[in-house]
Amino acid sequence: MIDDTSTSRVAAQDADTDETRRLISSSKVEGTNVYNLEGEHVGSVNSFMVDKHSGKVSYAVMSFGGFLGIGERYHPLPWGALKYDTNAGGYIVNITREQLEGGPSFARDEDPWTDPEYGRRVHSHYGLPYSM
Amino acid sequence: MIDDTSTSRVAAQDADTDETRRLISSSKVEGTNVYNLEGEHVGSVNSFMVDKHSGKVSYAVMSFGGFLGIGERYHPLPWGALKYDTNAGGYIVNITREQLEGGPSFARDEDPWTDPEYGRRVHSHYGLPYSM
Repeated sequence: MIDDTSTSRVAAQDADTDETRRLISSSKVEGTNVYNLEGEHVGSVNSFMVDKHSGKVSYAVMSFGGFLGIGERYHPLPWGALKYDTNAGGYIVNITREQLEGGPSFARDEDPWTDPEYGRRVHSHYGLPYSM
Repeated sequence: MIDDTSTSRVAAQDADTDETRRLISSSKVEGTNVYNLEGEHVGSVNSFMVDKHSGKVSYAVMSFGGFLGIGERYHPLPWGALKYDTNAGGYIVNITREQLEGGPSFARDEDPWTDPEYGRRVHSHYGLPYSM
């Protein structure tokens, strides 16, 4: 077990550094903690997927589990499912740990995005409408 | 002088790994080389700024110069000024090296985005319309 308290405080501080009211740096999004509505730490943002045509962020790719990167799995979430919370110093999602654990995920050496239906499955799992 | 040829080839390969036709990973955007219309390597993408309200990428933050991170300066470009070129394995901008060198820039420990007029100045320098 790792105590996440100090980590989340650091993330909060980092996230503030490169933010104005509207803009946030990609380097600050990456590594930011994600909590559910019960305040449980459910993971952190590893990276995110950008739509090259529209320039919009489409998915946050969360990581959780694994040890020293071994066995780590990546869980994409529709970007609209994340709300930044200044007090928590991280993102809040209305998603249970069980929903996340049962959601679409991939290993470091996998690239699920080559499947054009993958995004639709991610949205469907979290009960969100899909439009591309 | 550093030979950029091998670096750009690596970036091209990396950029392809996490791409579908529409999606690109934030981790692949970061580090991707930027060339001007003359094919000169003018820098690389260090990070980018995301608009939290619209979820859109607003600026690519380019880095060039510096040695081991010392003296490195960050040059934000309006995201719309960058076009990805698969053959080059990087982004192409219609911007001369002189325009870039004379453009708005900041040091590692500076945060220009707290100035609400900064984005406007960046757009203005590159002759692009500003809307927020």
